[in-house]
Amino acid sequence: MICRILGIDPGLQHTGWGIISSHANQLQFVACGTINPSPKLPLPDRLKHLHDELSQVIAQHQPHEAAVEETFVNKNAATSLKLGHARGALLLALSLSGLHVTEYSANLVKKSVVGKGHADKNQISTMVKLLLPHSNAASADAADALAVAITHAHLRIQVTG
Amino acid sequence: MICRILGIDPGLQHTGWGIISSHANQLQFVACGTINPSPKLPLPDRLKHLHDELSQVIAQHQPHEAAVEETFVNKNAATSLKLGHARGALLLALSLSGLHVTEYSANLVKKSVVGKGHADKNQISTMVKLLLPHSNAASADAADALAVAITHAHLRIQVTG
Repeated sequence: MICRILGIDPGLQHTGWGIISSHANQLQFVACGTINPSPKLPLPDRLKHLHDELSQVIAQHQPHEAAVEETFVNKNAATSLKLGHARGALLLALSLSGLHVTEYSANLVKKSVVGKGHADKNQISTMVKLLLPHSNAASADAADALAVAITHAHLRIQVTG
Repeated sequence: MICRILGIDPGLQHTGWGIISSHANQLQFVACGTINPSPKLPLPDRLKHLHDELSQVIAQHQPHEAAVEETFVNKNAATSLKLGHARGALLLALSLSGLHVTEYSANLVKKSVVGKGHADKNQISTMVKLLLPHSNAASADAADALAVAITHAHLRIQVTG
């Protein structure tokens, strides 16, 4: 059975999203992009922008499952709070769409895609391009989101069969 | 003109809400309560629980404006991240309901209600009960939420004349 997976790399300024389809061990690129709410908007409007664009992506591509990068707790509490706002709004948007969500730590995503837990952004982009030759991630956030989706596809297959 | 104000004291475990009506300098208690999503639920479901109950409150009481306590940035980044998730989901829920949201710092709320920026929870509850004699806040979170609504009523009147 083909499963379409939506991966998300959350951020208040830039949220990456990527959709792949997974069939047995075969992964295929479907679409990816970045949502960039204007920092000039009031916070509730920025969160609504994230919700609205994500809902559009879901309506267009009809994913079956979602995977979200679990945030590395930043040393800076103010940064953690900001990121928390974005993640909270995105997780709620997924939940309102009826999608089942799994969270993966950034290290697990790196390990799953590059093979080690401390890979940098370039290594992730390179491996994503290798695993999904037709992908066209224009930003590191979109590539990261595809990496999250790939991680879910790998671990999902291990669990379910 | 009578304005119904919804105040919110956000938290992932306990979110307080309170509604007052404001007419010139007169404030009146309408309703208040606490939303307590089970910590056993997965994070997206806890956020959806916050959204669903808040939406019900809004549908029932039809507030005109909303005010949310701005979070004191906790020294603990993990705590800030959790609180950020709750605030993000709540702000999004308010925004999806079409309500205009103003944020007030915890210190401003204390100063506005008790007269000093470092009042404790008991002082706030006592002052809320004094300002809204008919209020029946059963928790400190609900009393805090009413304090946020009172703050908005005060500052709103000052601004709009």
